[in-house]
Amino acid sequence: MNKKQLIEQIKIKRSFLCIGLDVDLEKIPSHLLELEDPIFEFNKQIIDATHDLTVAYKPNTAFYEAYGIKGWKSLEKTIAYIHKNYPTIFTIADAKRGDIGNTSTRYAKAFFDDMQFDSVTVAPYMGSDSVEPFLAFAEKFTILLALTSNKGGLDFQVIKDEKGITLYERVLQESKTWKNSEQLMYVVGATRPAYFKKIRNIVPDSFLLVPGVGAQGGSLQEVCKYGLNDEIGLLINSSRGIIYASSDKDFAKKAREKSKELQKEMASILLENEF
Amino acid sequence: MNKKQLIEQIKIKRSFLCIGLDVDLEKIPSHLLELEDPIFEFNKQIIDATHDLTVAYKPNTAFYEAYGIKGWKSLEKTIAYIHKNYPTIFTIADAKRGDIGNTSTRYAKAFFDDMQFDSVTVAPYMGSDSVEPFLAFAEKFTILLALTSNKGGLDFQVIKDEKGITLYERVLQESKTWKNSEQLMYVVGATRPAYFKKIRNIVPDSFLLVPGVGAQGGSLQEVCKYGLNDEIGLLINSSRGIIYASSDKDFAKKAREKSKELQKEMASILLENEF
Repeated sequence: MNKKQLIEQIKIKRSFLCIGLDVDLEKIPSHLLELEDPIFEFNKQIIDATHDLTVAYKPNTAFYEAYGIKGWKSLEKTIAYIHKNYPTIFTIADAKRGDIGNTSTRYAKAFFDDMQFDSVTVAPYMGSDSVEPFLAFAEKFTILLALTSNKGGLDFQVIKDEKGITLYERVLQESKTWKNSEQLMYVVGATRPAYFKKIRNIVPDSFLLVPGVGAQGGSLQEVCKYGLNDEIGLLINSSRGIIYASSDKDFAKKAREKSKELQKEMASILLENEF
Repeated sequence: MNKKQLIEQIKIKRSFLCIGLDVDLEKIPSHLLELEDPIFEFNKQIIDATHDLTVAYKPNTAFYEAYGIKGWKSLEKTIAYIHKNYPTIFTIADAKRGDIGNTSTRYAKAFFDDMQFDSVTVAPYMGSDSVEPFLAFAEKFTILLALTSNKGGLDFQVIKDEKGITLYERVLQESKTWKNSEQLMYVVGATRPAYFKKIRNIVPDSFLLVPGVGAQGGSLQEVCKYGLNDEIGLLINSSRGIIYASSDKDFAKKAREKSKELQKEMASILLENEF
């Protein structure tokens, strides 16, 4: 999926919601545990109940890896299910990978070619040649960590250099010089609304993937106020707030209700901003 | 395995070698491709031929993930094989993971509990609460990226802050304040010998995992000159230089020869330094 198609989907669905599929067997409804593949079954029901309200799904790979080969299978099945049934959905492998050149190529191959994800999250610490192998894949997006929503995000990301420029700003600036940088998006936590204005100055055109609305306390209104650009440019992620809205048999219905709430809020923001 | 046991193994084997098991189906001898699990078979033969010359094996998880579920199975079999047959070997999952707290716990569980790795490499960008979940596992080691050997390693890691302190130095300093920091080791590329002295000033007692000797051009002598500490404190990794020493049926024999060369050099360095 390319950027134009993604924007089109946002306009059609009146939503720039991304649902995080971070499935934890200890949190899903117990009646699913008797099934052969509870993780996939949970995802399938969430997806069927929410696909018209969201433009993207983002499984965090850690939750699948934690269940070994079984978990990996559930992930592959989930992505294949989305592509087959809802081909206009944008898929994000939240993997936060990054390694030296030939190794990053391996990761890119796994997520882009084999599993057919549209995008993958990548950590910037190892620099240009750890990220460019991901950018080499046409019509695929690399979502670089810039300013993360967690407490430790402030340990290094806001350190200022000799000229007063913070590390996350350097990451944004530098990354724009990398080959195929037009295929970059950036992770910016919703818990940092004060930073969005600065970020938009550096990357006015890029999509930002924004976790931290809801459970982590970020505000959708605040994020949109400074984060929206001429082409919308935002994907707002919610994971736990949606998928664990209920731990009972009605979990999919409740997930839809929570998604609908966010979608409605997004629809009115889009309207206000004349999209 | 704890630190004392690792040091003991180094002294017994007269070696602080780590062999990187970065298996690429396009590079392994073609006669193996007919077998059911060529990756495991390749690893098994390399391990059988080198286990007495090395103290650690380090599979880079990207190479396994690239082959999907099959690759993941090969990795699990490889680690189980090492633990069963050579229980005194230290195992490193070179995964470069790192995510927000509850997610890092998932990764830690996958590598430490399920696969029984002794250690895992972790990226520092997301700060304390992305690393501490790994450190919470007793007798397991977290190997934090500090100064990497690749070209892009200089993009962000050597940026100086307002006081003239580089990012990698900040990472080393900060990490020492984290809970269970005594279970930290650090990745420092062999291509950066000039930095080892500074690094030893900040983390005099920690083990350093040093990639980049051989194929990437780093010098063992230079690294040891500044990197050795009172308890040796170095694990020197070689991947391609050993495992692809031959692409023929004699690959395991040639891998042993290359390992032996490095081990002999290490033995004489240990002797010179009175270990």
